[in-house]
Amino acid sequence: MRTGSFDALRDAVAAANNEIADAGLVVQAFGNASQIDREAGVFAIKPSGIPCRQVSGDDVVVLALEDGGVVWGDHRPSSDAPTHRAIYNGLSEIGGVAHTHSLYATAWAQARQEIPCLGTTHADHFRGPVPVTRALTTEEIAGAYEAATGSVIVELFAGDGFDPEEAPGALVSSHGPFTWGPTAAAAVTVAAAVEMIAELAAHTLAIRPEQGPIEAPLHERHFSRKHGPMAYYGQP
Amino acid sequence: MRTGSFDALRDAVAAANNEIADAGLVVQAFGNASQIDREAGVFAIKPSGIPCRQVSGDDVVVLALEDGGVVWGDHRPSSDAPTHRAIYNGLSEIGGVAHTHSLYATAWAQARQEIPCLGTTHADHFRGPVPVTRALTTEEIAGAYEAATGSVIVELFAGDGFDPEEAPGALVSSHGPFTWGPTAAAAVTVAAAVEMIAELAAHTLAIRPEQGPIEAPLHERHFSRKHGPMAYYGQP
Amino acid sequence: MRTGSFDALRDAVAAANNEIADAGLVVQAFGNASQIDREAGVFAIKPSGIPCRQVSGDDVVVLALEDGGVVWGDHRPSSDAPTHRAIYNGLSEIGGVAHTHSLYATAWAQARQEIPCLGTTHADHFRGPVPVTRALTTEEIAGAYEAATGSVIVELFAGDGFDPEEAPGALVSSHGPFTWGPTAAAAVTVAAAVEMIAELAAHTLAIRPEQGPIEAPLHERHFSRKHGPMAYYGQP
Amino acid sequence: MRTGSFDALRDAVAAANNEIADAGLVVQAFGNASQIDREAGVFAIKPSGIPCRQVSGDDVVVLALEDGGVVWGDHRPSSDAPTHRAIYNGLSEIGGVAHTHSLYATAWAQARQEIPCLGTTHADHFRGPVPVTRALTTEEIAGAYEAATGSVIVELFAGDGFDPEEAPGALVSSHGPFTWGPTAAAAVTVAAAVEMIAELAAHTLAIRPEQGPIEAPLHERHFSRKHGPMAYYGQP
Repeated sequence: MRTGSFDALRDAVAAANNEIADAGLVVQAFGNASQIDREAGVFAIKPSGIPCRQVSGDDVVVLALEDGGVVWGDHRPSSDAPTHRAIYNGLSEIGGVAHTHSLYATAWAQARQEIPCLGTTHADHFRGPVPVTRALTTEEIAGAYEAATGSVIVELFAGDGFDPEEAPGALVSSHGPFTWGPTAAAAVTVAAAVEMIAELAAHTLAIRPEQGPIEAPLHERHFSRKHGPMAYYGQP
Repeated sequence: MRTGSFDALRDAVAAANNEIADAGLVVQAFGNASQIDREAGVFAIKPSGIPCRQVSGDDVVVLALEDGGVVWGDHRPSSDAPTHRAIYNGLSEIGGVAHTHSLYATAWAQARQEIPCLGTTHADHFRGPVPVTRALTTEEIAGAYEAATGSVIVELFAGDGFDPEEAPGALVSSHGPFTWGPTAAAAVTVAAAVEMIAELAAHTLAIRPEQGPIEAPLHERHFSRKHGPMAYYGQP
Repeated sequence: MRTGSFDALRDAVAAANNEIADAGLVVQAFGNASQIDREAGVFAIKPSGIPCRQVSGDDVVVLALEDGGVVWGDHRPSSDAPTHRAIYNGLSEIGGVAHTHSLYATAWAQARQEIPCLGTTHADHFRGPVPVTRALTTEEIAGAYEAATGSVIVELFAGDGFDPEEAPGALVSSHGPFTWGPTAAAAVTVAAAVEMIAELAAHTLAIRPEQGPIEAPLHERHFSRKHGPMAYYGQP
Repeated sequence: MRTGSFDALRDAVAAANNEIADAGLVVQAFGNASQIDREAGVFAIKPSGIPCRQVSGDDVVVLALEDGGVVWGDHRPSSDAPTHRAIYNGLSEIGGVAHTHSLYATAWAQARQEIPCLGTTHADHFRGPVPVTRALTTEEIAGAYEAATGSVIVELFAGDGFDPEEAPGALVSSHGPFTWGPTAAAAVTVAAAVEMIAELAAHTLAIRPEQGPIEAPLHERHFSRKHGPMAYYGQP
């Protein structure tokens, strides 16, 4: 365990970080993606302070899931690495995590509001609203701040029979979106969807401030077209 | 009838789907365009889950207008195919249909509001507001949902002496815009116009919330500059 | 007079129309630019219905200022040609005109509001607000509509000692911006500035709805930095 | 002192001005960047009226810090040169200055409001709000206007133990943002961050008008992750 150079894992993470930039989800070096190898007990993540577009597989850092120690790599890992680790530890069903500061998703996070489901674009991706975390306590901020950022995400799904396909992301209050999926690439795809959902919701409420969420049957129908045993979207 | 491989029809549909992506009207795989051959009793449509930009003529699926069965193609058709079929059956004057999740048109659809005509850009394209469908009933959602989505569009134009040139599209409540024209390419051109109209209307009402529609004579004059027997726009 | 093929004039107009598209000021075929040769008594303008980006010098149409008749060219001129002609006839100091449907300038036009001067970017270009025309009467709409569209622009500057450098454009109510300058290229540069001024003003009032215009001395100082005998901006 | 051709300084300033354009922070010729050589007592700045994207090292003008006289170059310097000079004289810790008319930062400046810290993206860059200057007096506008524009910026930080890392920029009321750093390139990077902060804040308050600033501990934690002796962001 925790041996080797994890070439394929690092290349996948580099490509996902490049895609964050190509999809217009970051400005400067904000944003990062990671992917886990649960058998090896490691996850690979973007290095700190290097723009997403420039990350190569050789820059990626591999960390131990157990203690966060560096297993491979010369660079300092993203300062958000403890957040990713806390998410992987708390949500054992997921394989990749992405974090961006995309404009509208971050604006909703700064407004400390969950994104209500106002249409089928949203319903295609989330079974409920895009949730938002509680604010961190002063103690959490003063202590292991980045790990606590991951813990409040995990807290959102405690005791719920968490299904990552039904809730593939969340907004961290005053910060921005984190998304996940089976791989880093899948997490980045969700990050793009969350930005679109967030922008649509902002424009919708600007046009009609009193608009409420769509009815449950429509939400459920759209979600189950794409997810779960009854899905009939895409190629078999 | 319903024989042959419909090469030209499929190529036209592939090009129109590519154009949806090139015009910035979709994110990811959302959006699709189709075109009908009424003599052959078939329409060709985008395959499900394949990004618009990547669709080639070989990916396009040809379906029977009568029963929606596959006449040509190896892929599963767009999950919105029953919507397109219902529109072709209900509006016999049209030749192509486009559907996008473009941002402002979708925001108006999510706000469940018709787009009022606030200026000549709108009047150049629609003889009235851009209409919005009623919400689907719980029964319609639980049943043949996609076909019902097309039926509520058709319902908008019942008993009116429908002229596709006067009303080249509609917003589906909580979902997004559908547009049409003589061909798939023409439907995509309208989709771009609807997005521009929708964005202009949102900005106009942000600047001046109480602004009402333009006067009927101005609307009529602009519309008839471009459409109908008195048109004098474009090359003869 | 009115002889020859006006090659240089047509090429200048084609380039200005191309620039309208390159600057992102039009969607589809909306928008046009023209330039006048006052000695020859002609102006050259974009043909109708051809996208701005595709216009070449051979497509451009040359019209007589006096009666609007075609002096050179095989295409039908822009349907807005009578508007340009009315502006050239009414504002004898100008050499080029541009018309766009750029998003924010058109939204202000649709809101039927002049753009107040909220900052130095605006003051650098206009000595006052960006004016908006009165609505056309039903008679004007039913009659020579396009010429009347130009006449209401000219009306804005009647009796004022009009200086095209101080007021290089206006918004036509419910329609969109027209701008002018010594050449078609200069008019397009103003069109880009008007769009920026319009977007800035919309965002400013969204942040602070009660914000009023800047003080007159600041407006005057900025305007005269760039225009008139005391200008000290740019290279000598 | 003040001798030589300052090749490296001019090239750095040209590259920073090009980057202003590449980052989408200016329209037309608005915007400029400069860098100082404090030992030589000179600063190099963009020439007036030349688009940022086109500036080469040969176009850049070198001015004396003491009196603003031209030390090197054939062009007229940016009309904002006296503003830059006043900032360099008042804030002796800084090495480069950038000025843009980027859309959202300029809208906040036009609204004459400081940008409150609504999230961690802001807290990563500024230890407090992005401050806004007082309005200039009529006397200041009529006199050495550009120098006064710099002086009101310096005034913001008087008597405060100014640290350029904690407050790397400000909004000039009714005008737009000025930013700074150790170099012209660093100042442009801050200009891009300020635009992002400004856009995020506008969208956040559109979603939730009553949203207040983040709590001080969270602000402090994020700021000190990236700045000062306890920083742990980026590569060592």
